[in-house]
Amino acid sequence: MNDSEIQNRLSQQFAFIKEIDKEKQIGRQTYLSDAGRKENDAEHAWHLAIMCMLLSEYANEAIDVLHTMSMVLVHDLVEIDAGDTYAYDEAGNATKQEREKKAADRIFSLLPEDQAKKMRDLWEEFEEEKTPESRFAHCMDNLQPMMLNDASGGKAWREHEVHLSQILNRNRNTASGSELLWKYAKEHFIKPNLEKGNIKE
Amino acid sequence: MNDSEIQNRLSQQFAFIKEIDKEKQIGRQTYLSDAGRKENDAEHAWHLAIMCMLLSEYANEAIDVLHTMSMVLVHDLVEIDAGDTYAYDEAGNATKQEREKKAADRIFSLLPEDQAKKMRDLWEEFEEEKTPESRFAHCMDNLQPMMLNDASGGKAWREHEVHLSQILNRNRNTASGSELLWKYAKEHFIKPNLEKGNIKE
Repeated sequence: MNDSEIQNRLSQQFAFIKEIDKEKQIGRQTYLSDAGRKENDAEHAWHLAIMCMLLSEYANEAIDVLHTMSMVLVHDLVEIDAGDTYAYDEAGNATKQEREKKAADRIFSLLPEDQAKKMRDLWEEFEEEKTPESRFAHCMDNLQPMMLNDASGGKAWREHEVHLSQILNRNRNTASGSELLWKYAKEHFIKPNLEKGNIKE
Repeated sequence: MNDSEIQNRLSQQFAFIKEIDKEKQIGRQTYLSDAGRKENDAEHAWHLAIMCMLLSEYANEAIDVLHTMSMVLVHDLVEIDAGDTYAYDEAGNATKQEREKKAADRIFSLLPEDQAKKMRDLWEEFEEEKTPESRFAHCMDNLQPMMLNDASGGKAWREHEVHLSQILNRNRNTASGSELLWKYAKEHFIKPNLEKGNIKE
């Protein structure tokens, strides 16, 4: 690459880096552990990436940790345009795929073509959930809010009157990322909150 | 490991994962790009990790991207106890090292011993800034707030009446991570804000 090609590449990369700052404004339904406020997508993605570092040893199948961390770090970028769709919002989930696809078209194309493709592939791999890495990434994405819901006294579950059947349906593939972590989550996050009435039978 | 050892290991790991949620409460001095509010440490670390993915191609020396991403993701965990010390706060910086060492002792030791060591090693490597990965991690840690300060109209620089000499001193090693990125930052983030008076001569 000559100097002007490098400058052009850098401009595209920094345009993307500046744009994704908006992910810090995308609110989720999960409360922080002290129940004081809800977390946002950037905080959530950071938490998932560290969980990948620490918990990859429990993946059902051997996973590439860099690939999985990269996937969780970028998996919610489409929500900059499409917004966060709550796990148990049926109407929102009906239009989610279309809204997110349009967002991916715009956001990833800010990058140079090779990196735009790499980011888009990571996002699509996450959505399709067909590789060991994407199954483990979904496992992290499902465990983290359960851990926080438990830590914050079940506040989000109570506010949304969440039923056990909804949680089990949402987590129907969580064990495909890690049998052991799903067993831990049922025992330590779901069962006590069912007993306390934070989750409805 | 037998089942009770695994359960014990998982309890330690989830105690740490819950504890680090507090990093989302540690405020920094940098404003988000829309200048509406300041960012926190978890959002900052997430931003740095994605920057590593995209910009590692400009590192002066070849770097291990997973290792560098892991380092930026955990480099501010000690601030859960020690708080964020603003780059240009001289009094705060005098006691920073001691406060952060004590924090590292407490926070990392929540983890099983092998992972506590791994995390602590990553943090110490970042602090010592002697490896190619840690030099690049510092380069990201310095570029990201410059990018946001520029995007938010130089708000944090104006509020703290920051002088060019302070920025240059703070960034005396930034080029050792990437000559090319430091050159880009001077041209696109520092120079225009010096001309607008957001940074003092």
